[in-house]
Amino acid sequence: MRNIAVVVVDMLNPYDHDDADLLEKSVEQIVEPLSGLIRRAHRSSHARLIFVNDNHGDFTAGREELQRRALDGRRPDLVEPVLAPSDSPFMPKVRHSAFYGTPLDYLLRSEGIDTVVLAGQVTEQCVLYSALDAYVREFSLRVARDCVAHIHSDLAEASMRMMERNMSAELLPAESCLDV
Amino acid sequence: MRNIAVVVVDMLNPYDHDDADLLEKSVEQIVEPLSGLIRRAHRSSHARLIFVNDNHGDFTAGREELQRRALDGRRPDLVEPVLAPSDSPFMPKVRHSAFYGTPLDYLLRSEGIDTVVLAGQVTEQCVLYSALDAYVREFSLRVARDCVAHIHSDLAEASMRMMERNMSAELLPAESCLDV
Amino acid sequence: MRNIAVVVVDMLNPYDHDDADLLEKSVEQIVEPLSGLIRRAHRSSHARLIFVNDNHGDFTAGREELQRRALDGRRPDLVEPVLAPSDSPFMPKVRHSAFYGTPLDYLLRSEGIDTVVLAGQVTEQCVLYSALDAYVREFSLRVARDCVAHIHSDLAEASMRMMERNMSAELLPAESCLDV
Amino acid sequence: MRNIAVVVVDMLNPYDHDDADLLEKSVEQIVEPLSGLIRRAHRSSHARLIFVNDNHGDFTAGREELQRRALDGRRPDLVEPVLAPSDSPFMPKVRHSAFYGTPLDYLLRSEGIDTVVLAGQVTEQCVLYSALDAYVREFSLRVARDCVAHIHSDLAEASMRMMERNMSAELLPAESCLDV
Repeated sequence: MRNIAVVVVDMLNPYDHDDADLLEKSVEQIVEPLSGLIRRAHRSSHARLIFVNDNHGDFTAGREELQRRALDGRRPDLVEPVLAPSDSPFMPKVRHSAFYGTPLDYLLRSEGIDTVVLAGQVTEQCVLYSALDAYVREFSLRVARDCVAHIHSDLAEASMRMMERNMSAELLPAESCLDV
Repeated sequence: MRNIAVVVVDMLNPYDHDDADLLEKSVEQIVEPLSGLIRRAHRSSHARLIFVNDNHGDFTAGREELQRRALDGRRPDLVEPVLAPSDSPFMPKVRHSAFYGTPLDYLLRSEGIDTVVLAGQVTEQCVLYSALDAYVREFSLRVARDCVAHIHSDLAEASMRMMERNMSAELLPAESCLDV
Repeated sequence: MRNIAVVVVDMLNPYDHDDADLLEKSVEQIVEPLSGLIRRAHRSSHARLIFVNDNHGDFTAGREELQRRALDGRRPDLVEPVLAPSDSPFMPKVRHSAFYGTPLDYLLRSEGIDTVVLAGQVTEQCVLYSALDAYVREFSLRVARDCVAHIHSDLAEASMRMMERNMSAELLPAESCLDV
Repeated sequence: MRNIAVVVVDMLNPYDHDDADLLEKSVEQIVEPLSGLIRRAHRSSHARLIFVNDNHGDFTAGREELQRRALDGRRPDLVEPVLAPSDSPFMPKVRHSAFYGTPLDYLLRSEGIDTVVLAGQVTEQCVLYSALDAYVREFSLRVARDCVAHIHSDLAEASMRMMERNMSAELLPAESCLDV
């Protein structure tokens, strides 16, 4: 029974946007633990590994194209270790929340998942917004605290406290995120 | 042409929940400017005044009942001056965002509204979450900065910065919120 | 454990719209069995009784107002026997489906409901559309076939076949709808 | 200004499901007019061409994979002439409606589209359900009547009447669907 989903948000990034330099520094810190979390979730019998990624406004682009652009971007070293395994669900998204305009809610419910582990970028934007949408839908929340990257550390820190205090999220190291 | 909506969130509150004492102190500061904003929006020919309020888990309760309970609660002085005029739309909500499980998106679009002014409580929860849901739907955002009340001032302050920086919200005094 | 919900759609009707005369004839046939279904669902320990009703474009109107207008309408005899008990959830809706712009999905999931029984009007419109929205969300469907009223019998008959064939709905008499 | 969208539903089909034989006969009739409609919409300056296709339960599959499977299926002759141009938006869907769990609503609104032309398969299922979801969202509806394919002709015929009568859809030949 898979009742935990690890949702990896927006790690396919060409790092060519505003503030990319600030973000990269933070992403450098999470690549190794996130890579490990992805590997463990992929092997796990009770966890479901799901990738959701912004299409950056290009509605013609799917998995292959978004992956290619990220690998052809400025920092393939931040992309390659955390790529989605080919047998993992992958959903393009069009706005900040992983739930908006995607079948994530449907997939989670149809698999009986009750706990969502969030990882990826950006802590104070897509991660926070996805957390909120999981919370209003009554999913239990975990945030892999060493697997989320930010642009602004003060807003990221406030976001982590909001998720913990107001969304009852557990902030856990990657190695504990799949514990039952 | 009404292209601005003032959305007043969760001001019907019996103030009997955890942290109500912290919240009340903040609400005391906003009652007067919010009352003025409601009055001006109600009179305005280009603004639409909409009230959205949590049902506090009671799906049998509608406008009259939620209003009665708030007026019978601990702080009717914080409720009475900001009641919804009887000819203003009123929507019960069931979770934090004013958009989740409500017809708010439908009403805004069917009236051609492109700008949402947020007011009410709690800045770092329902106001922030409603702001996000307006933002992903591409509404322009204004926050009436003297008409939003918080429980925790540090999280509220971070929320205001998030709305301004990451959701392109204008933080305005009530008296400027209806400017075109 | 309440795992069945009986959803009664749009029975608060002043019967002053186009085609009301065609509809009334059909509603006359369902009032008695629907009244019985409402009574049994209300008493049942494993069923949840929920009312969803169009606001007919008036976003200021809630439960009391919609009820009053229907009772003051042309056919109170079709309204009074099927009124919502005061302790039953009631949701205004703004478009045809009982799921669109309402917290119905949230309420069903938060109560662990897996089976939706549909009753009310109009078979080939709001009932069909609500059935579809329940079906895409993977709820099991039952239609109380003696508790749904139509305007056009040919479209209603096609709708019943669509729900049975394409949405795996069981078409049952009211007296069997709560069977486990 | 593109204010019309042509939404092509579920034409990537390996035709290996139940009732595929019934469906194929109908699809054979629409391939030529649909191919023409796609070509004209693709060239048009005021129309937006969008493809939405079921993922058949495989959340790892995107555009390339769904296209490959359809072309490798039993009837590539029904697939090849109506493939999505590479510069057209493509959205996987997971249930029957083209709006459910997809960014279609977002894309239509962000481009200022007010009129949706539906084409594809199956008339009495995904086309009907997508029509409903467009209708509740207040889009004007056109159905390219020679570009929709059915499994059961009686239900398809009833669906066309429902869309025309109850959803104010215009049923038009492909050659008139882009008229302003």
